Amino acid sequence: MNGMPDQVLITEVLLRDGLQMEPVIVPTDDKLRLAYGFLKAGVTSLEIGSFVHPDKVPQMADTDRLATELCAGEAASLHALVFNEKGARRALEAGVRHVRLIVSASDGHSRANAGLPTRQALDRLRPAAEALTDAKVQLEATIATAFVCPFDGETPPGRVVDTAHRLAGLGVSALHLGDTIGAASPWHIRRTVTAVQDELRDMPLGLHLHNTYGMASANVWEALHLGIRRFDAALGGVGGCPFAPGAAGNIATDDLVNLCHHAGIATGIDVDQLVALRDELHALLGRKLDSALAAVPAAPAPLRVTALSDIP
Amino acid sequence: MNGMPDQVLITEVLLRDGLQMEPVIVPTDDKLRLAYGFLKAGVTSLEIGSFVHPDKVPQMADTDRLATELCAGEAASLHALVFNEKGARRALEAGVRHVRLIVSASDGHSRANAGLPTRQALDRLRPAAEALTDAKVQLEATIATAFVCPFDGETPPGRVVDTAHRLAGLGVSALHLGDTIGAASPWHIRRTVTAVQDELRDMPLGLHLHNTYGMASANVWEALHLGIRRFDAALGGVGGCPFAPGAAGNIATDDLVNLCHHAGIATGIDVDQLVALRDELHALLGRKLDSALAAVPAAPAPLRVTALSDIP
Repeated sequence: MNGMPDQVLITEVLLRDGLQMEPVIVPTDDKLRLAYGFLKAGVTSLEIGSFVHPDKVPQMADTDRLATELCAGEAASLHALVFNEKGARRALEAGVRHVRLIVSASDGHSRANAGLPTRQALDRLRPAAEALTDAKVQLEATIATAFVCPFDGETPPGRVVDTAHRLAGLGVSALHLGDTIGAASPWHIRRTVTAVQDELRDMPLGLHLHNTYGMASANVWEALHLGIRRFDAALGGVGGCPFAPGAAGNIATDDLVNLCHHAGIATGIDVDQLVALRDELHALLGRKLDSALAAVPAAPAPLRVTALSDIP
Repeated sequence: MNGMPDQVLITEVLLRDGLQMEPVIVPTDDKLRLAYGFLKAGVTSLEIGSFVHPDKVPQMADTDRLATELCAGEAASLHALVFNEKGARRALEAGVRHVRLIVSASDGHSRANAGLPTRQALDRLRPAAEALTDAKVQLEATIATAFVCPFDGETPPGRVVDTAHRLAGLGVSALHLGDTIGAASPWHIRRTVTAVQDELRDMPLGLHLHNTYGMASANVWEALHLGIRRFDAALGGVGGCPFAPGAAGNIATDDLVNLCHHAGIATGIDVDQLVALRDELHALLGRKLDSALAAVPAAPAPLRVTALSDIP
C-alpha cells in the first residue's frame, strides 16, 4: 500500500512499562516464562525491566536477575531502561547488551519522573551513556511526553528535536517518541515525527503509544504513512502512567499485531502463541485486560486473507 | 493537514444501532430526552430508529412515535431505517423526511439479516424506494458488510461497487459503507472506498464503523486521508452485531469527536454536553460503556489546544 512499510518491528514492553504500575508484583519466574514465551512467539525485541531504585518501583527490583538470566546468548534484542550512571553500572554488571535511555521532552514531566528538568536530566545521562558506549552496549532512547505533557500541555516539536539532537550526541542509535499519557492525535504524530525526520534524517524512529483516548491505532496508522516501522506495545494493553490517573495502558501488542496482519504488514509474531500468553497474563494479574482482542471470543486472524474465516 | 477535511458530519446512531441489541428496553420518553440532548449538543444528523417488525426488534417498536414526535419542524436531519415497502409506508405515515435504506453487500449477511441474498434484497427495496422518492423523502443507504462478512469472509470491492450502483439507481443521494462486525483494517477501508469513489465520483460517501478489534480510529483516520467526511457513531460505543458474539459496539461518538477536535477537525458538537449525555446513558443502561473516554476521569478536550489543560 503506497509507501507503507511491509513489515514492522514491535518491541514488547510488558515486562517493564506494562507491569511497573500493576498492584500485583509478578514473580521473577513468571516474568521469565513470559519472556521465553514472547521469544518463542517471534518477538525479537523485548524490554525486560528498568534499572531504577527498587524502593521507587518495587516491580522492577528483579531487573538485574532477569537480565542475567535472559541476556546471555539470546539472539533477540533484550534491553532495560537506564536513567543515570548507577543504572548504567548495574546494566553492565548484569551483562545487558542493549539499553534504552529515557528522558522527557517536557520539563514538567521530567521533573516529576526524573527529578530534574529536561536539560539537566540529559546532562545526568552523559556519564551513563559514556560508560555504556565504552562497553560497546547498543544505546537507544525513549523521549517521553514527546507530544503532550500532563503538566505542560502540548510539547512543542522544537523541544523534541532539541532533545533528539542531544541524545544523538550521546551515541543513541534509535529514538522512540513517547505519547506517555495517550493524548496525542494523529495530527500531533505527524507534526512531531516530521519535525524530527527533517532534522535527524538518518535516525531510525519508533513510537511508544498509549491508548488512553482510543487514538492509538489511528496514531499507528498515521505513523505507518510517515514510514515509521518501530512500535512499542504491551501484551493485553497493560500499563499506565503514574501522572494520568485512570489512563489506559500501552497499545496492546495483540491489537497491534492484528491490525498489522490485517493490513498485510508482517510482524514476525505468531498470533495464536501471543493470545495464549495473554491468557496466561490474565491469570497472573487477576484482572480484565485492556486489549480489544481480549474481549472478543473469536481467535484473531493470523493474516489478512485467512483471518476472516475465524470470525464467527 | 494536507488534504484532510476541516470538518466532518457525524450521524449519531445510538437510538437505532446503539440500542437495538441492548437487553434493557429504553422507554420512549428517555429516548426523546436523549434525542433532544443530542440536538442541543450540536448533532445535526440523528438516526432515530428502524421500521422493522416490532416482534423482531422490540427495542425499535416505538420508532413511529419517535418519528412523529421528533421529525415535525426539526431543522436537523432525522432518519430511520427502512428494509421494505411496509417500512416505507410506516415512515411516510410518521412524517419522516429522511430515510436510510439498508442492504448487505455479502449474500451471507443479507440472508441472515434480510432473509434474501443481496440482489433480491435490492429488488425488494425498489417499491419502498419509489414510494419514498415519490413523496420527496430524502434517501440515503447503508451498505452493510462492505468490507468483511461474518459468513462470507472478505467482501470483494466489486460487490460493493455493484450494490452502490444499484442503490444510486434507486435514488439514493449518499452512501454509508458499513464495517458491520468491526473487522476491517485501514487497508480494507482504502481498497473499497477508492473502488467506490472511482466508479461513483459524485456520490457522497460515509463510513459506519464498529470497534470490535480496536481498529476503528485507524479506519477513521485512513478515511479522512481519502476525503471521507461522514461518519456514523454511537454515544459511549454502544451497539453490537447479532452475528458477531462479543463484538464491540459502534465507534464511540465521544471518542470520535475527541479525535477530530484533537486533530483540528470541527464536528460542531459540544463535548461537555456529549459527556453529560453519556453519563445519563450510563445510568439508563446500567452497564459500563465502551468508549475510551468513559474510562478516563479527565474531561475530554474541547479543542486541540485548549484540551490539554484538562488532563490531570
